[in-house]
Amino acid sequence: MLKPLGDRLVIEVVKEEEKTASGIVLPDSAKEKPQEGKIVAVGNGRVTESGERVSPEVKADQKVLFSKYAGTEVKYDGKELLILRESDVLAVIE
Amino acid sequence: MLKPLGDRLVIEVVKEEEKTASGIVLPDSAKEKPQEGKIVAVGNGRVTESGERVSPEVKADQKVLFSKYAGTEVKYDGKELLILRESDVLAVIE
Amino acid sequence: MLKPLGDRLVIEVVKEEEKTASGIVLPDSAKEKPQEGKIVAVGNGRVTESGERVSPEVKADQKVLFSKYAGTEVKYDGKELLILRESDVLAVIE
Amino acid sequence: MLKPLGDRLVIEVVKEEEKTASGIVLPDSAKEKPQEGKIVAVGNGRVTESGERVSPEVKADQKVLFSKYAGTEVKYDGKELLILRESDVLAVIE
Amino acid sequence: MLKPLGDRLVIEVVKEEEKTASGIVLPDSAKEKPQEGKIVAVGNGRVTESGERVSPEVKADQKVLFSKYAGTEVKYDGKELLILRESDVLAVIE
Amino acid sequence: MLKPLGDRLVIEVVKEEEKTASGIVLPDSAKEKPQEGKIVAVGNGRVTESGERVSPEVKADQKVLFSKYAGTEVKYDGKELLILRESDVLAVIE
Amino acid sequence: MLKPLGDRLVIEVVKEEEKTASGIVLPDSAKEKPQEGKIVAVGNGRVTESGERVSPEVKADQKVLFSKYAGTEVKYDGKELLILRESDVLAVIE
Repeated sequence: MLKPLGDRLVIEVVKEEEKTASGIVLPDSAKEKPQEGKIVAVGNGRVTESGERVSPEVKADQKVLFSKYAGTEVKYDGKELLILRESDVLAVIE
Repeated sequence: MLKPLGDRLVIEVVKEEEKTASGIVLPDSAKEKPQEGKIVAVGNGRVTESGERVSPEVKADQKVLFSKYAGTEVKYDGKELLILRESDVLAVIE
Repeated sequence: MLKPLGDRLVIEVVKEEEKTASGIVLPDSAKEKPQEGKIVAVGNGRVTESGERVSPEVKADQKVLFSKYAGTEVKYDGKELLILRESDVLAVIE
Repeated sequence: MLKPLGDRLVIEVVKEEEKTASGIVLPDSAKEKPQEGKIVAVGNGRVTESGERVSPEVKADQKVLFSKYAGTEVKYDGKELLILRESDVLAVIE
Repeated sequence: MLKPLGDRLVIEVVKEEEKTASGIVLPDSAKEKPQEGKIVAVGNGRVTESGERVSPEVKADQKVLFSKYAGTEVKYDGKELLILRESDVLAVIE
Repeated sequence: MLKPLGDRLVIEVVKEEEKTASGIVLPDSAKEKPQEGKIVAVGNGRVTESGERVSPEVKADQKVLFSKYAGTEVKYDGKELLILRESDVLAVIE
Repeated sequence: MLKPLGDRLVIEVVKEEEKTASGIVLPDSAKEKPQEGKIVAVGNGRVTESGERVSPEVKADQKVLFSKYAGTEVKYDGKELLILRESDVLAVIE
């Protein structure tokens, strides 16, 4: 299992075909487009300059939109995963 | 539904035609011009370095002016939405 | 009405002709020159990293000098307005 | 009267001729050279991230040395003034 | 022995051949790819601006993924080691 | 007298000839080389973001090494002085 | 004696020949390579934004690895010394 550090998350990227199922279609435009994924694992959260740890707002199994260019790719147990920071997550899809 | 994270908002962009109705006309000038939209969803707010969460100043259904180049576009349930940070919102139109 | 967010202000720019009336004449020099305006609306102030909101030092109807290149232009109710941050205001003209 | 905001000061620049009177002569060198002036008005001071306002170290009528390229020029009541930040002031001439 | 300072770690890099054993295979893509290693030594943690020391989340002998371009190489006792910051560690492999 | 503001110091630069007397000889290398001087006046110290003033570690009449490119030159009472920040001082020569 | 300020250290650089004795051999690679040295003097430590002074983690006579491009060279009493910040020290060699 991959346990992300700090404010990092492990995310399983949702492929383009599955993406239509959840109702997200990306418009044609010059602006940055987000990507969809499912949270696999969540870190303990970042530590502020006052020394407090900030609990993440997200949890495992949530579907999220995140910045397309964020994170680091890794293959683990045959799955394509992405490790990114919670601040790269734009929204939870409920 | 899209639930934005931290200090992010989901905004429905107001088209140019509708914009004249609300009385906002943009002048011809070299300065950055704002865009008009309606808030659809509001995040829980950012966490400061002292570990406190700052409640957003805006709420759903408010009409706002925001920086034209801010945010990330996404289509959801057939609507063109924009996810941006509260700090990109210039003013509420009351 | 435009209600600015955070440490932002809405300002009505004073035209060159009116400027002479208030006694401000800009010298010929290479340095940045300020612009004059009247405050129309004031935000609630910025929130510091300790989570405290800082009350603005200015209030509506004050005449101010501000950095010429600051802010975002918007026309509202036929008036040319500027939305800028309190930190772009150099001085109040009393 | 000009009332500067935050950690800003209004300064009346001392002309080259008057400068010799106060004993400051600038050496020939490639390093940045300071300029001399008299403080006309002082702001309330900056607000730190903990929300405390820091009282300025200087007061009106003091003669100061400041960075030559700092500040914004303005003419007011026929006087050439400079609005700059207290942090641009290098030293008080006592 | 090498005792890293602050939020630094000493890591023994896992060679490509050993890497397949732990199940991590890197995909072909333009994104940054992480590297695998074993923690050899852990510093005392960074000190925040409030003066508190933040205990590291990792400990010796853990296997970790870290940013490929992070850290400083050093050979010690015939081993190829890397000294990097805890913030360069993406995840612990459990 | 020059009274420096905040974390600034007024320093009298030690000429190359006097420098040998104090035992400091600069090596031939590409790295930045420090300069030697005597502290003439010390400011009250900087104010941190928590609003506390930090007392300077140095005092008048101490000999110090400082970064060669730091500070602002000024001639005062016929002396070549340098106004720089305490953080530009590398070490006290005891 | 040189007494470094704040979070600075005075270090005596270990020459290449002596370096083999301590067991540190640097690999051939494109990554930044550290340098070895012995601590001669230690400052009082940096002051955080909350106004607390952080005691250094190192002390005189310790052997350390530090970033090759860090610090300022100075010759003192015939010794080649380097003044650098504690944050440039990667690890203590025990």
